[in-house]
Parts: sequence; structure tokens; C-alpha cells
Amino acid sequence: MKMKTITLKTLICILALALFGFTGKGAEPESFPAKLPATKPSDRPLSSAMQRFYDEWDGKEDYAKDLYTAFKYTRLKGFEERDNFSRRDPSKIVRVKGVYHVWYTGRKTDSPPAGANATDTIPATDWDLADIWHATSKDGYVWEEQGIAVKRPESGVYGHRTICTPDILVWKGKYYLYFQAYKEFTHPWGQIYCPVSVAYADSPNGPWTFVKEPVVRPGTSGAWDNAKINDPYPIVFNGRICLYYKGAPVERGHEYITRMQGLVTATDPLGPFEKSSFNPIFNSGHETALFPFKAGVAAIVSLDGPEKNTIQWSPDGENFEIVSHVMAPPIAPGAFVPDAFAGNGDGRGITWGLCHINPDGGGATNESILARFDCDLSLDVERDEFKRSNLRFGDETYFNNPFVVDEKLRRQIAADQKKVDTDTIGTE
Amino acid sequence: MKMKTITLKTLICILALALFGFTGKGAEPESFPAKLPATKPSDRPLSSAMQRFYDEWDGKEDYAKDLYTAFKYTRLKGFEERDNFSRRDPSKIVRVKGVYHVWYTGRKTDSPPAGANATDTIPATDWDLADIWHATSKDGYVWEEQGIAVKRPESGVYGHRTICTPDILVWKGKYYLYFQAYKEFTHPWGQIYCPVSVAYADSPNGPWTFVKEPVVRPGTSGAWDNAKINDPYPIVFNGRICLYYKGAPVERGHEYITRMQGLVTATDPLGPFEKSSFNPIFNSGHETALFPFKAGVAAIVSLDGPEKNTIQWSPDGENFEIVSHVMAPPIAPGAFVPDAFAGNGDGRGITWGLCHINPDGGGATNESILARFDCDLSLDVERDEFKRSNLRFGDETYFNNPFVVDEKLRRQIAADQKKVDTDTIGTE
Repeated sequence: MKMKTITLKTLICILALALFGFTGKGAEPESFPAKLPATKPSDRPLSSAMQRFYDEWDGKEDYAKDLYTAFKYTRLKGFEERDNFSRRDPSKIVRVKGVYHVWYTGRKTDSPPAGANATDTIPATDWDLADIWHATSKDGYVWEEQGIAVKRPESGVYGHRTICTPDILVWKGKYYLYFQAYKEFTHPWGQIYCPVSVAYADSPNGPWTFVKEPVVRPGTSGAWDNAKINDPYPIVFNGRICLYYKGAPVERGHEYITRMQGLVTATDPLGPFEKSSFNPIFNSGHETALFPFKAGVAAIVSLDGPEKNTIQWSPDGENFEIVSHVMAPPIAPGAFVPDAFAGNGDGRGITWGLCHINPDGGGATNESILARFDCDLSLDVERDEFKRSNLRFGDETYFNNPFVVDEKLRRQIAADQKKVDTDTIGTE
Repeated sequence: MKMKTITLKTLICILALALFGFTGKGAEPESFPAKLPATKPSDRPLSSAMQRFYDEWDGKEDYAKDLYTAFKYTRLKGFEERDNFSRRDPSKIVRVKGVYHVWYTGRKTDSPPAGANATDTIPATDWDLADIWHATSKDGYVWEEQGIAVKRPESGVYGHRTICTPDILVWKGKYYLYFQAYKEFTHPWGQIYCPVSVAYADSPNGPWTFVKEPVVRPGTSGAWDNAKINDPYPIVFNGRICLYYKGAPVERGHEYITRMQGLVTATDPLGPFEKSSFNPIFNSGHETALFPFKAGVAAIVSLDGPEKNTIQWSPDGENFEIVSHVMAPPIAPGAFVPDAFAGNGDGRGITWGLCHINPDGGGATNESILARFDCDLSLDVERDEFKRSNLRFGDETYFNNPFVVDEKLRRQIAADQKKVDTDTIGTE
């Protein structure tokens, strides 16, 4: 409960009260003003919240922040076919000669994911037995599916079981797709060894050359990322290829790291990649999207961990601070980041991208769909509608997954209620 | 962007790297371990995120925190009648002789809210021309509406136009309802003068005596709360009646305070109430719910401000720190807090309550409904299901309000896209 911090702050406040509130003048401090002081007031006691407002939040409401946004969502055209055809984990979007390109995990199987009952042809999860697919669009709404860009390789090679969660790098005129490469069966909650592999091409339309040797491998035994390098996400920053990833250890349980993220860097897209000494560099998030912003790097951190649903920024690409809290950020976002590889120290931000949705509010075992998100995390647009907070869900949200009380939970709640509900103290 | 903080932290990290990473031994620091160190490691460089993980987040994942929870929602029985009958802003729930009681804003008018076209009988907003209603339940799911508990008073008295957002105090065996009391027309975004008034009774079933003189008035000219005392919320803490409220000034615009909250205290339920010198004590939130927790006070802070969607805790009821980030917290929650008035320094927390939902994802002008929420913010239950994060919305959420791109916004996005979308730099 951070008692020490609080106690110290409280002490300071009490001292401030003593100094400003109960002086010989007998003057109580004036009320805090309606007009927000531009800098932290030093002439009155401040609550912890008002101290944070200046120290942590820069004295600004959400709407005044470049890196605050609401998100809006739109259904896409061109991805209608479903029936055991799942599309998820869209890459960043690259525009070449006016055409938008996206790559994603595509799973087209004869049956739905079956968890532990998976076989060589029945997938375990939504991202099992998948290949890397490619689609193009002229407007970002209507997409033409181009089919498989990178097919999973032959037996014995990492990726033979499934390749998934691709992301794209453009480096010296060539194209590089990084993706998770599983050799073995991948069940929903298992921690199977997963390195990152790469394929390259001279054009966004391929053909793609699959590099059989993984380029980023999990850490050594005991390391925080010793089982998995997931969700590889490359940008160019400070002259280097910065590939962000979500790591996971083999070990499971509350005493082990569950959702942290790291960085590897290289000057050649085929490696070697070197892990940052600062790793982990995110303590939260899931399929984190990053983009150059001003002279640094911004990140959309979602779903998991103590800093879930925040936008963060770092001057060096490794040390990130929370800038804002956001609602309903896109899941597995792949933004259109025209300067993702510019490395020019002048990141302009993003206005839209693709993401995936698990239609029934599940995650691991269902068909996913791709959707478009719009936002204002850009220095070049003015969109008041996206700077609003106080966003209220409709009843479609509350009475569907993951917010429904199932029968098992209902029984537990009834039993708990019987146990802990008493008459309100003081009404006897 | 808090450059100073980051630069200092980065500097410390670089120094740490120099010390631990590039010493005469030539040893690179080991990878961060899979098993989370119980205390902040001092023998290796730490990213800003890992420093925060220990300094701000207590070295704990969400599931390990008493004050982290997911929320689940259930439709209620007994409130079916709709058709210009809006129910919202449920009070804390009080249980007396085995029966649960709740009070709420009830608006039963002949026509829906009409904003600026309101008249003496046509409401402006969802909470206009309302009275305080009362319902009882034996199980928390099926409610019996008891009708109006407190009716708005005669002309000339604060509350004549509307009384709304009630909350309940039990003090020395008597019952006190506090509520917003508008004398004038209240339009959706106006900042009309609004004090808090009170009614009292010997029993939760009334009859209620309306006190004509408001008990808490807005601040003086220039103060942060000079227009409105909204969402009054009383608990007993440290021997005093602590009434939390959302304040707002008359002044509107980005340079003025928009969503902060304060505290008034008293030792008599009818006042006088004294404002805390620390006010504002929340920099974020909307209809904040509070409850005694351990020796302090916990708060569910939602919807608005830089710290939206957090659970906070304070040892003194005035200086709050963020404990966790939550998803989809209840709107305008009224929890069942059996020890809300116990003042015994041993708050046990909450497991359920009522909230309101604006069914179409709107806020100001639609009929609202009451729903039940369940959670685990209690020291007395063990509910693993509520300690989960990684909660994914279904497509019902993304393709409904407030996440839909309307026609006007679609045009703006199309215009922006034409202006700012370029070919990806490096693909020429």
C-alpha cells in the first residue's frame, strides 16, 4: 500500500498546512482556484492528487495532451469469409505507391481450435497452424486479400507448427517480416519455446525468402524471457533497428514474470540482435504498438499489468513514462506509421490502423476479425472528438463477455454473499 | 513530457550500466530473472518501467493486490418500466434487518429530455425534474420499487427544479439522504448553481424530513468548486462524517478545472460542514465510490481525468495514491458497504453494488437503467475470476456507441487521411 510514500507526503502536507494554514496571521489557505495554475502552487497545501497532477500529469487534463486519445472502430470490407478462417495480429501498415499493405496471422483450418485436443491438423489455439497473410487497400477500409505471403516451413525448422503475429520492417529498400516461429504444438496456456524468425523480400508483394535460423531467441535458463519472444515489433530509432517484444519464461505461477516486454537492437535486419541491458522495458501490456513521436518513441500499452491501458513515451526508446490513461485501446494494433523507419528524430504520430477483435470477448480459442481503429495521436491533425474522456459503454458491453456472471461464478457469489453480507453496522 | 524526470532517471541508469555493465570485469549484467525479485534489485540497471514496478506498483502484479478487481454485471428485476422513466445514481446500499435498501435519482416525465428546449414539464437532462426514489430487495437481484422517498420541494427552495444523485448516511441510528438540489432549469452542459441538501428519517422507509437550507454550498467566486457540489457521498471515518463530492466552477474552458473532487467533514449530519484544506483531493473521476478499507479509505475513480479507471487508497481519507488500473468500472456505483459508517479503522471492502448504465453509450440525455456489479475488493472473499486482467471486449462494444465513427467524423477522417497519409518513408 506504499505506506512509506504516503506517510512522507502526508507529513509534508501537514507541515505545509502548519506553515500556510495556521500561521500567526490566522489565515486559512484560500480555496484552490478554478483557473488551473500553470505551475504547481507552492503557497498552499496540496493533496497527493494535486501533487501528482503537476508532478506526474504535467498539470494537464487529457484533452491538452498530444498523447491522449479516444479510439473509434469501423468494420472492414474484404475479410468477410469466416468459418474457421481467423485473421489477427495485423502488422504496422506500410504504404507503397499509394497502396496500403498489411500482414497478419491467418488461420484457415477444417475445424476450430480444440485446445489440448489439437492434432497435426486440428489447431490448439486461434494462432496455431497459421501462416502469414497479406492484404492491400487503396483507402484503408476496403481490403483485398492477397493470400499467404509467408508459408510455414518444412518439418524440423522453427515455424513448422505455426508462424504468427508478424510485423514489418523496411530497411534500405528491402522488406522484412518478423514473426513467432513455433516448431511444436502450441496449447492455450502452455509456455512452448518460441523464437522469432524472419523472411525478406524486395517488394511488399514478395516473393518472401524464409530464413531458417531464428533471429531472436528466448533468454537463457532463469531469464525473464527464457521461453518466448512474442509479438516482435520493429521500428528504426537512433540509427538502429529496434525490435520490441513480449517475453515470457517457462515457469508459471504468481511469483514469476507474466507480462513484461523487452527490446533487442541490430544494425542488420538479419541480426545479430542484442538485448537491451534495461530489459524488461515495459512492466505491462500485450501486443504493444510503438511509433516514433517527436524525438522519442510512444507506445500503446493495453490489457495487462499494473500500467494497462496507458500511452507511454520515452526519449531513448528504453525508458518509458506514462503520459495518459486511455479507454478501450485497440487490441494487437498495427498502426499506419509512415515514419516508422525514417529514424529522423521527428516522429509525427498516428491517426489510424488495424487491430483485431475476438468477437465473443474471448482470447485464445476463437476466430478473430480485423477492424480499423481511428485516433488522434498525431501532431498533424486536430480532432476534438478524440480528445474527449468520459466515454460510457452501452449495455451491449456490460451484458456480454467478458462481463457476464456465469453459473459457476453465480454460485460462488451467492455463497460469499451469505457469508459476508451482514446488516449495515449502525442500523441495529 | 516530463523530460527532466526522464533525463535524470536515464542518467542514473546509464551510470548503473557503467558501474555494473562495463566494469573492468567486462561482465554484462545478467538478464532480469524470471522469478520476480521481492524487492527492487540494486545490482543491475533498471528501466524506468521496472523502477516504477517497485516504486509505484509495490512489486506486485494485479492479481496479488487486494485493491485490484475485474467487474461483472447482471441485469436486475423489478425496474422494468422504462418509457421516460429513468433510474440512475444509486446510493450506497444499506442492509437493515436482512433487507437491502437503495435510493436513486428517479425521473418519470411525459417526454424525454429535450436539452435547451426544456420547459417546466419537459426535462433538459436525464437527471432533471427528478425525485429521490427508494427500492428494497432481499437478495440484491430482485428489487421492489417503493416509490418516491424524497419529493422535490416547493418553489423558491433549492431542489424545486430537481433533486438527484442521492447518497445515504446512517448516524446515531438515524438516516440521512444527501442530494444535489437545483432551483433552476438545468441544461446538459451548463454550470448552474447547485448546493447539496439533506433529508432525514428515523427509518430507511421514511418518512423523510426535507431540510430547506442546503448543507453544503459551492465555493466562493474564483474557487475551484464555485458552481456545483455534485455527487455527495458520505462515509464515517476517523470519528467524522466525511462527505466526498465532485466540484465544478462556473467558468468553462480548457484553462479551468473540469473534473476534480473534494471533501467536507462534520460531526453533525446537518452541518456545519467544513471543506478540507487539501481540496481538491482527487484530480480525476466521476461519481466516485468510496469505502473504508483496512485503516484507510479506498476509492473507485472512473471515466474522467488523467487517473481515470483506477482504484486509489488513502491512509487519512484525503491523500490518495493509485493502487491499480481497472477496466470497465461501474458508472455511478453504489456499493453495499456494511461498514461504511462503522468508523472502526478496519474496513473490509466490497463485493457488489448497483450502478447505472446509459444503454446507448450516451450520458446526458437518455434513459438510464440500474444494474448490479460484482467485484472482489474485499478482504473476506477469494475470487480468482475477479483478479484476472487481459479482459477483451466483444464486437458488441467496438461497433456501438461511443466507439462508432459518425458521418461527420468520417468526413473529417477522410479529409485528414488525404492530407497526412503519405507513402511510408524508405519505400521510394
